[in-house]
Amino acid sequence: MSSGYNGPPLLDLTIDNITPNTNLINAQCKDARLKYLMSRLVTHLHDFARETRLSTEEWMAALNFLVACGQISSDVRHEFILLSDILGLSLLVDSINHPKPPASTEGSVLGPFHTHDAPTMPNGGAMSTDPEGEPMLCVCTVKDTEGRPIRGVKIDIWETDSSGHYDVQHEGRDETGPSERCVMESDEQGVFWFKAIKPVSYPIPHDGPVGKLLDKLGRHCWRPAHLHFMFDKPGLDKLITALYLRGDPYETSDAVFGVKQSLIVDLDKVDKETASKYDAEEGHWLLRHEFVLVTEKETQDLRDRNAVEALEKLGLRMKLVDHLPVPELD
Amino acid sequence: MSSGYNGPPLLDLTIDNITPNTNLINAQCKDARLKYLMSRLVTHLHDFARETRLSTEEWMAALNFLVACGQISSDVRHEFILLSDILGLSLLVDSINHPKPPASTEGSVLGPFHTHDAPTMPNGGAMSTDPEGEPMLCVCTVKDTEGRPIRGVKIDIWETDSSGHYDVQHEGRDETGPSERCVMESDEQGVFWFKAIKPVSYPIPHDGPVGKLLDKLGRHCWRPAHLHFMFDKPGLDKLITALYLRGDPYETSDAVFGVKQSLIVDLDKVDKETASKYDAEEGHWLLRHEFVLVTEKETQDLRDRNAVEALEKLGLRMKLVDHLPVPELD
Repeated sequence: MSSGYNGPPLLDLTIDNITPNTNLINAQCKDARLKYLMSRLVTHLHDFARETRLSTEEWMAALNFLVACGQISSDVRHEFILLSDILGLSLLVDSINHPKPPASTEGSVLGPFHTHDAPTMPNGGAMSTDPEGEPMLCVCTVKDTEGRPIRGVKIDIWETDSSGHYDVQHEGRDETGPSERCVMESDEQGVFWFKAIKPVSYPIPHDGPVGKLLDKLGRHCWRPAHLHFMFDKPGLDKLITALYLRGDPYETSDAVFGVKQSLIVDLDKVDKETASKYDAEEGHWLLRHEFVLVTEKETQDLRDRNAVEALEKLGLRMKLVDHLPVPELD
Repeated sequence: MSSGYNGPPLLDLTIDNITPNTNLINAQCKDARLKYLMSRLVTHLHDFARETRLSTEEWMAALNFLVACGQISSDVRHEFILLSDILGLSLLVDSINHPKPPASTEGSVLGPFHTHDAPTMPNGGAMSTDPEGEPMLCVCTVKDTEGRPIRGVKIDIWETDSSGHYDVQHEGRDETGPSERCVMESDEQGVFWFKAIKPVSYPIPHDGPVGKLLDKLGRHCWRPAHLHFMFDKPGLDKLITALYLRGDPYETSDAVFGVKQSLIVDLDKVDKETASKYDAEEGHWLLRHEFVLVTEKETQDLRDRNAVEALEKLGLRMKLVDHLPVPELD
C-alpha cells in the first residue's frame, strides 16, 4: 500500500468485529509489554461498552468528566490519583506490587499529597508549625524481619494540619513553603523520632469531579485520621504506608480503602521519663511504632511467585520479562 | 456508626477482596443505572490490573497520561474524544446507539472537530474560503427509507481546509470566525447543495498525548479524505456520518476506524448542464449523494431489540429502563 501500512484492512467495523481489529492494528507495537497492556485495555473497554450498551450521552459525560479531572489537576493536585484511590485501584496496584511477608509492615495508599520538597529534619525536630494542633511525640524504629535495626533509611513523613488540610491545599504555599511534612533518616539504632500533631480525620478534596462522583454514588469523602510514611533505602523494598488512629468514626469506611488492622495504632501519653528523654512535654500525645522492612529481592521474588500463580489460575499462558507478564507465544 | 455509614466494613482489603468491597460501597448509589455502570467499570478496571499485574510505574504513567489529555483539551480540542476514537470506542458506541436498518445511510465517527458556531447557509452557498482548495460542487438529497424526500432537515457539514486542518486548529480563529463549516436545511425536494473543496487526507492532532501513544504503538495518525455530515430533525434519528473519497491511501487504515464501504464515494466532474443549473464551473469536482434517514422510533426499537439479544447472549439478566440496561434483580 502506498501508505506503507501493514495492518489489517479496517473497513465496515461493527459492534462485533471492532475489538479484534483494534487489537490487530495495535499489534504493530514493537514493545511486547505495551502491546499486551493495550490489548487487555481495549478488550475491557469495549466489553464494558457492550455489556452496558453505553449510551452516547453517557459516553460524552464520561469523556467530559475525564477532561475536568485533567483540568483541575496541577503540580500540587492529581485528580486522577484521587479517582484511582476512590475506585480501589490504588490499593490494588500497591497490593500487587508490594506483597508483604507476614512479619513485615503492610502498605497503604500513597494518596495525592506527597511532595518532593519536604525539609530534611534531624531526630527531635518538629514537622508541624500549627499552634492549633494537639502536640504528638513520635518515637519509631525501623527493623528487618529478623528484628535487627536498620540505619540510614530515608523516611518521608506527611500529615494534614489541625484543620484537615495538607499544606498544598492552602493558598500562598509557594511563599510559606512546606509544612506538616519532613524527611528523616533512621539512626544507628534504627530509631527516628520527631514532633508532630495528632492526626485528624478529613475529607479528600471534594470540590472537583471526583467529589461530585462520590456524591452521586451516595459515598462520603472522609478519611480516618492517619500519618503517612514512606521508607526508602537501596536494597530494601520501598514501603509506602500510614498509621491510623484507633476509634476514628471513619475507621471502617475510608473513602480510599487504605486502612488495615495492623496499621491501626493506640496513642499513649508522654510520661515524665519519656518527656525528659525526648525533650517533650509530659501529657502530650505519644505514638510509638516499630516498622519492619523487607528487602527488594524478597519482595520481587514474592511478587513474581504471586504473578505466576495468579496468571495460571486465570488460565493465561504468560511469561515474566523484567518481572512483568507478557504472552508466552507472541 | 457515628459517621452514619451503612456500607460494608472496609478493612484489610486485598488483591482478592477489593473488587466486591468497592462494588458494595458503590451500591449505596440510588441511581440503578449509575450503580450498574460503576460496578462493571470497577470490575473491568480491577481485572485489567490483575491480569496485567500492572506495575506502580505503569499505573503512574497512565494517570499522568490522563492528566496530560485533560490539560491539552480546550473549547476547541477534546483529547479524550480523540483517545476514544483511536481505541475504537467511539465507533463502538455509535454502532450500539445508532443501529441502521439495511436501507439507510450508515454512521461514522463524529471526531473532535464539530463546533456549534457554524454559519447557516442557503442552497448554493460556499462553505470554504480557501483559495488553495480544489473547488467541489456537492448536490445531495435526504430521503426516508421509502424513497420520499425529507424537507426541513438541519444539516451540519464540516471539513478541513486544503492543508488538512480544521479552522479551530489555526491560531486566531476567534477573530476570523468559522470556515469550512456550515449549517444547511434540506428544501421541499429534500435537496441541499453547496460549494466546498475536495477533502484531503490529514493527520489527526498528533502533538499531544494521543499522538505520542499512536507513535509508541507503531500506528500512523492519518485519516482518509472525507467530508463530515450531521443530520437532525425532530422525529428522525440523528445521523452522524461522513463520506470518504475512493482510492485514498488511508482508505483501509483510518486511524479512527470510521470508514465503511457504503460511505466511500466516487467524485465526478461538473458538466455543462450541471454548471449552468448550479451556477458552478464546468470541470470542477462534483459530489452527488443520497442520504437515507430513519425515524427515531425505528432506531430505538432496533437498539432495544439488539440490546436485549446481546445481553441474553452474554448471560446477563437485565431489563431496559428508559432504553438502558439495569440488572433485573436488584
